[in-house]
Amino acid sequence: MSKNCRKTILATGGAGYIGSHVVLELLQAGFDVVVIDNCSGSSMEGLKRVEKLSGKKVHAYQVDLVNKAAIQEVFKKHEVYCVIHMASLKGVGESWKRPFDYYKVNLFSCMNLIEVMSENNVFNLIFSSSATVYGTPKVLPLVETLETGGCTNPYGRTKFFQEQILKDICQADKRWNVTILRYFNPVGAHESGLIGPVGNPYNIMLYVALVTVGRRDQLQIFGNDFDTPDGTGVRDYIHVVDLAKGHLAAISKLEEHRETQPNIYNLGTGTGISALDIVAAFEKSAGKKIPYEIVGRREGDVATIISDPSKANRELGWKAERRVQDMCDTLWNFQSKNPHGYTEG
Amino acid sequence: MSKNCRKTILATGGAGYIGSHVVLELLQAGFDVVVIDNCSGSSMEGLKRVEKLSGKKVHAYQVDLVNKAAIQEVFKKHEVYCVIHMASLKGVGESWKRPFDYYKVNLFSCMNLIEVMSENNVFNLIFSSSATVYGTPKVLPLVETLETGGCTNPYGRTKFFQEQILKDICQADKRWNVTILRYFNPVGAHESGLIGPVGNPYNIMLYVALVTVGRRDQLQIFGNDFDTPDGTGVRDYIHVVDLAKGHLAAISKLEEHRETQPNIYNLGTGTGISALDIVAAFEKSAGKKIPYEIVGRREGDVATIISDPSKANRELGWKAERRVQDMCDTLWNFQSKNPHGYTEG
Repeated sequence: MSKNCRKTILATGGAGYIGSHVVLELLQAGFDVVVIDNCSGSSMEGLKRVEKLSGKKVHAYQVDLVNKAAIQEVFKKHEVYCVIHMASLKGVGESWKRPFDYYKVNLFSCMNLIEVMSENNVFNLIFSSSATVYGTPKVLPLVETLETGGCTNPYGRTKFFQEQILKDICQADKRWNVTILRYFNPVGAHESGLIGPVGNPYNIMLYVALVTVGRRDQLQIFGNDFDTPDGTGVRDYIHVVDLAKGHLAAISKLEEHRETQPNIYNLGTGTGISALDIVAAFEKSAGKKIPYEIVGRREGDVATIISDPSKANRELGWKAERRVQDMCDTLWNFQSKNPHGYTEG
Repeated sequence: MSKNCRKTILATGGAGYIGSHVVLELLQAGFDVVVIDNCSGSSMEGLKRVEKLSGKKVHAYQVDLVNKAAIQEVFKKHEVYCVIHMASLKGVGESWKRPFDYYKVNLFSCMNLIEVMSENNVFNLIFSSSATVYGTPKVLPLVETLETGGCTNPYGRTKFFQEQILKDICQADKRWNVTILRYFNPVGAHESGLIGPVGNPYNIMLYVALVTVGRRDQLQIFGNDFDTPDGTGVRDYIHVVDLAKGHLAAISKLEEHRETQPNIYNLGTGTGISALDIVAAFEKSAGKKIPYEIVGRREGDVATIISDPSKANRELGWKAERRVQDMCDTLWNFQSKNPHGYTEG
């Protein structure tokens, strides 16, 4: 722990669902943590709970990354060792309705951050990307060497564009040391039940949790005629605590990595879980039936998305260990204790 | 001409090589023209000459599109009917060395412009894209329905990203009326010899012109072992005056176009011209030998790039009419009268 204690990590989006779990892991590993979050779709309450859980303080700034001057102010106050850039608009459906906002917020944030980092001689960056950059899978499991692009929605394109920008910048300027983490489907919550998902539910398990506490109407499952064992869509759900630990592993690897291209890692389990698997597991966690209806497929939805996480397993010495029942148990634990999220905190 | 006389066109990059020719055509067709240009790689001298040629005034603002507030000021002063967004960093080689600048300038400019247009209820946009969005050709000639992406350099990616952003915005908001013009290789100059290329030469014909007046050392031809008639690279060179007239045709089409997707047109001749063809034609124009050496291919260069311009021919009633000798004659006319560009103007 001592080797980390003087290093400061700047976590953008650190008050969000994934961000709060990452910040907790960072604090527990002995890092100093600075958070920038505009608290859209999140709140500082999550960070207060992280401080409570860790017994440590977070330097939190409610700042919008679209505002470059505000980022500069934060960099003046802290000597940053590495930035973990998690802040993002992240709703696939919403990105179809508000594409301009998605492009502006996600691209301006990334580029302002890159510029201020460079001005401050900070070149260690861990970037939160997504399985969406693979587009519609042609082969499974998805491995990092596959071609990216052909994204099926504007949100995915904002991630793909950012990856491309980072690749080109690394190529041109050897000082950059960038790791790209491609998240699969983050679910679950910290075992304490104090921190968990905030904002809109972006996958079926998070939606089920809200249905179970009455915050969403009946669950709809989009299609049961896919070419999968039970006909419903199969995804690679990963426990948010496992995901958070992947970031710690990536930081440890930073010093070793001095390539001209970003190091790219899938963060997934490599195991597929169907929509009906989730309903069954969540019913077990919550001890009640979850009513659902099968409706038509959504445009662009594919049968199965599964990661090949072996590169991260091998190179980062990291492995997602939590299984689907653990994901549902911890999520239900959080959701039942916080039926309205952090607002009643 | 009368139907245009009350319409104001805002031309970004209007002081540049292509921009000045477009502005001249607009003025001659009776439009009011407002120009925003930061004069990086161009100068207001070109616009003074356009005013002289047309006998009309241009409302010119030396403003950077990265500065949103400055764009807002311009929109306060003029009732804009349509924006032609030509401003761009545009050097393929340079984009490898300064990718951050390319992404920042090109993306921020486009998005700031979109945002200010929307705030002012201006939704007619003609966007200058490039043949580079097709990436390495799999089939020839290049037709608008081919898949884009797979660009071979950061400059091309900035154009591809902007096209994607515009497509998504049109999909989400039916008020947008966007035309994307994919330029092939613009060359030549206005027949008056008063306006012509400014800034760095971005293709071999523009380079040859500078060699001929002694502003560049000996011409290098990159590879003579391509699978082409004479072994040198074949491109679709288009006379800048033809290209400019394509913008006028696109404006005329705006009122008819009310699709949810941008109208996309190749602006090219459909005819391939080799590097050696250009040397021979330019020697004829200039009346002197142009020494050159054959050197190795550049990474990523392909044998042949030719447009299929038939969609623009058919739908816009536009056709590139000027041939290679005309391109070289007009370019030499400009270059010999302005050996140092506009600086001696």
